[in-house]
Amino acid sequence: MALYSEKMQAYQSLIEESLPKYLPATDTPWATTARAMAYACEGGGKRLRPVLMMAFADLCGGDAKSVLPFACALEMIHSSSLVHDDLPCMDNSPLRRGKPSVHVEFGEDMALLAGDSLLNRAYEVMLDPASAPEIPVDARLRAAFVIAQATGIDGMMGGQTMDLESEHKRIDAETLETLQRGKTAALLRAACAAGAILAGADDARVAAASDYGETLGLCFQIVDDLLDVTATAEQLGKPVGLDAGHDKATYVTLLGLTAAREMADRREQEAQRALDAFGEAAEELRRLTEQLLSRTC
Amino acid sequence: MALYSEKMQAYQSLIEESLPKYLPATDTPWATTARAMAYACEGGGKRLRPVLMMAFADLCGGDAKSVLPFACALEMIHSSSLVHDDLPCMDNSPLRRGKPSVHVEFGEDMALLAGDSLLNRAYEVMLDPASAPEIPVDARLRAAFVIAQATGIDGMMGGQTMDLESEHKRIDAETLETLQRGKTAALLRAACAAGAILAGADDARVAAASDYGETLGLCFQIVDDLLDVTATAEQLGKPVGLDAGHDKATYVTLLGLTAAREMADRREQEAQRALDAFGEAAEELRRLTEQLLSRTC
Repeated sequence: MALYSEKMQAYQSLIEESLPKYLPATDTPWATTARAMAYACEGGGKRLRPVLMMAFADLCGGDAKSVLPFACALEMIHSSSLVHDDLPCMDNSPLRRGKPSVHVEFGEDMALLAGDSLLNRAYEVMLDPASAPEIPVDARLRAAFVIAQATGIDGMMGGQTMDLESEHKRIDAETLETLQRGKTAALLRAACAAGAILAGADDARVAAASDYGETLGLCFQIVDDLLDVTATAEQLGKPVGLDAGHDKATYVTLLGLTAAREMADRREQEAQRALDAFGEAAEELRRLTEQLLSRTC
Repeated sequence: MALYSEKMQAYQSLIEESLPKYLPATDTPWATTARAMAYACEGGGKRLRPVLMMAFADLCGGDAKSVLPFACALEMIHSSSLVHDDLPCMDNSPLRRGKPSVHVEFGEDMALLAGDSLLNRAYEVMLDPASAPEIPVDARLRAAFVIAQATGIDGMMGGQTMDLESEHKRIDAETLETLQRGKTAALLRAACAAGAILAGADDARVAAASDYGETLGLCFQIVDDLLDVTATAEQLGKPVGLDAGHDKATYVTLLGLTAAREMADRREQEAQRALDAFGEAAEELRRLTEQLLSRTC
């Protein structure tokens, strides 16, 4: 069964088509970094964050297509974080989605610059007066601000800091949740909130979108932790038991399998409840949530 | 003789005072990165970019103080680029302004995150609706866009790419100028242009501010190259002949001492001419330009 509905598959295709348009030209004297930026954004997984942004724009009565510049910008921020995460001084990962990491392909210096340039490019795209001109400037500014806060030190980057500092250390479940709220949930929260904001939703709906994204992000991480111990390597397409091997705290090592499963269920119900604010129209998102959280790989 | 007039010294003090207010709290679980960000912004040189932004806001009839959030944001972008430039995979500099570089003091991983977080923080500050609320939203958006473009791959980051790729390679004077237009001149250009934009200047004045900043940046670099061969180590407070030792193309190695001097003079006249658009009121900036470009250290 496909993860996305037809409508969401169409969003995903639009994102794949549009991303290259927002990336820099590669016929410049700084082509190496520009090519590394494109490489980092290629063939990239589910595109969950931009798809969610478009879905929430649609859900709030906006035109999903009109938020494409912001959706692509958010995907660039996500890609930028992966490029820097893979660097030798961070996770030192030679592979990303089965391909050589950016620093393996282009060198560490170009990977550093490509990550910086992708992060910055996201703001160039969001701030460009030619991007989404049909959306009022106040909404654009507010959406960009929500994304900036979720990305920065009090969001994703704070979570990355905690992640690095918590290796080989005993942390409790509360600390792990704070870490994940930044590292994984912040950008998902911003994706949903920005979609609603750009569609002109009222504060209650923006808050519901925001809650949904954050809870989904937290739940996502618990499911990941569960799969790391319960799935087979064949199902996951990557080695299992990686977290335990890395001496990394997970919801499973901290709470045990049963309690971690219960927590995932609780979070899923919470995410579904957040969708109540959107009534019947959220049916597709309800199904997506279910599928995302019941995955076995 | 002090570099800055009393008015500009007051700008500099305001920037020193204000910067910490725009940096993140350090009583969080991600304090290490937050402390590294503050360290990177401490005791930092002339603060030329934010001072110029304030000077141009004033020159265009605006309130210099009102642009402080943008001035501090630009300084954060500059600091971010220095943190990443110093990393082992880039210039591998253990020292910055006589102090251990951020990665020496906080580790490479935290330096990487501090650079990312400072760059992103600049946008958090510029996009915050509470920043400079007295300035119309369109002007804020336009100034932030100008700064984003100057920072990114088609600006400073493109120049950094060329700089890395031109080491141990023969490049011509035209290529060196393209490199410096990005690496050094782009942020100075954006500083002056943003000051004018935020003060509500007309297009002609924004263009003149922009030209001034860019020409100053290009000239600055030629003077740097000249000093590297003509100054004594005592005057510079750092070893001389570094560029030649690094097998790096400079205006002096490419053009010779006499032609490089002539080029610096020509650029200085160009920068001064750009100030003509502002009449008598630009007298302080004229003197600053003269001092900046006649420095012997």
